[in-house]
Amino acid sequence: MRARSVPDPALQLAIERLHAQYAHALDADKLEEWPEFFTENGRYRVTTAENEERALPLSVLYAEGRAMMRDRIQSLRHANIYEPQRYRHMISSVLVEPIDAGIVQSTANFVVLRIMQDGDTATFASGRYVDRVSMRELQYVERVVICDSRRFDTLLAIPL
Amino acid sequence: MRARSVPDPALQLAIERLHAQYAHALDADKLEEWPEFFTENGRYRVTTAENEERALPLSVLYAEGRAMMRDRIQSLRHANIYEPQRYRHMISSVLVEPIDAGIVQSTANFVVLRIMQDGDTATFASGRYVDRVSMRELQYVERVVICDSRRFDTLLAIPL
Amino acid sequence: MRARSVPDPALQLAIERLHAQYAHALDADKLEEWPEFFTENGRYRVTTAENEERALPLSVLYAEGRAMMRDRIQSLRHANIYEPQRYRHMISSVLVEPIDAGIVQSTANFVVLRIMQDGDTATFASGRYVDRVSMRELQYVERVVICDSRRFDTLLAIPL
Repeated sequence: MRARSVPDPALQLAIERLHAQYAHALDADKLEEWPEFFTENGRYRVTTAENEERALPLSVLYAEGRAMMRDRIQSLRHANIYEPQRYRHMISSVLVEPIDAGIVQSTANFVVLRIMQDGDTATFASGRYVDRVSMRELQYVERVVICDSRRFDTLLAIPL
Repeated sequence: MRARSVPDPALQLAIERLHAQYAHALDADKLEEWPEFFTENGRYRVTTAENEERALPLSVLYAEGRAMMRDRIQSLRHANIYEPQRYRHMISSVLVEPIDAGIVQSTANFVVLRIMQDGDTATFASGRYVDRVSMRELQYVERVVICDSRRFDTLLAIPL
Repeated sequence: MRARSVPDPALQLAIERLHAQYAHALDADKLEEWPEFFTENGRYRVTTAENEERALPLSVLYAEGRAMMRDRIQSLRHANIYEPQRYRHMISSVLVEPIDAGIVQSTANFVVLRIMQDGDTATFASGRYVDRVSMRELQYVERVVICDSRRFDTLLAIPL
């Protein structure tokens, strides 16, 4: 059912650190750094838990390779002349499993809060990150963001 | 006041991993796995911070032994023909203290979000887990869920 | 951009443990323990992300040294004859960087929930802790609480 074996502390903490750096970059609105968390051909996919369970190949959002990610950030920057809201990522329950030579799978829970200018705070998104991480580069080969909600609008605004 | 001594990294991370596996099992609606996180005679208890502070022996919910836990899950499955909501556990601030031969106490903060089908997300429960863990089996000998709120209805729906 | 080097597991976990003990002390309403988390001359500062980005020297709240912190707690205790609400700290994404002999910088995300007596739960504050920790005493030399919201009232109630 569940693997009892505990990963090496250094490996576990390296993955948690990658997730933490990712979270802090996004929360600090350093969106231009976002593609650098992925390998050159890394994949980023946002989907809903409902799609995932039905094994529907639909993604709400899909980017393959850093070039496509950079394009996406540029579009975001142009679309959002003025973005007064803030985001805050909380990540927990990081389960790490070595799956291949130099590749580690990580599953983690996340909640992203959105804080409006007047202080109103709401849950913007919640769900699971299912990642494959290259340990050589300490970058995401793949990050799949599986959102609990199926409201699409919230999933499209910023990288999660 | 507070112990300065830092536990062994492998011990700390083993406990955090157990909590993470527990959280992911519940969030994935794998309720049938829930009893397996406890020792054969393990105890699960849900109470409120208010009861706990007044040292009231009342528990909102109590289960002793895996057999009772399996019964509880079966009842839940029969009662809830159709459960469109999802839950998301966030766990943090895990304090580990070895207390006995092979037994570790863990105190951790938790928040459980409930995500309705239309995307509405609310805090379903928050509070502290106070656990005793058998390191041999890496299972809970006792998990006490101390909820901040005293609203009973929310505490009865699913294992927290 | 971001340091790839991973800190020593024992160091990382010692900092996370300090943050966890701090969180549990506050959530258990042990406010009198709060000054003990700081070095004798430690500094505690609450500010907003907006002030921080504009490099405004304004702090919403400032305390230097344990004596001032004890005064603050005493005032709080006198002002709040009856405080039925509870708080719950969630901390995640702890980034640790050794910066000096015996001094470590830590950046972490936090969310504090407030649970009212009737069970209503709301986000009380969210933001970042930016800390400098003395590793000898395992105490904060400085804790800067950078809140996402600029609503001042919520920032003044209790130590965050």
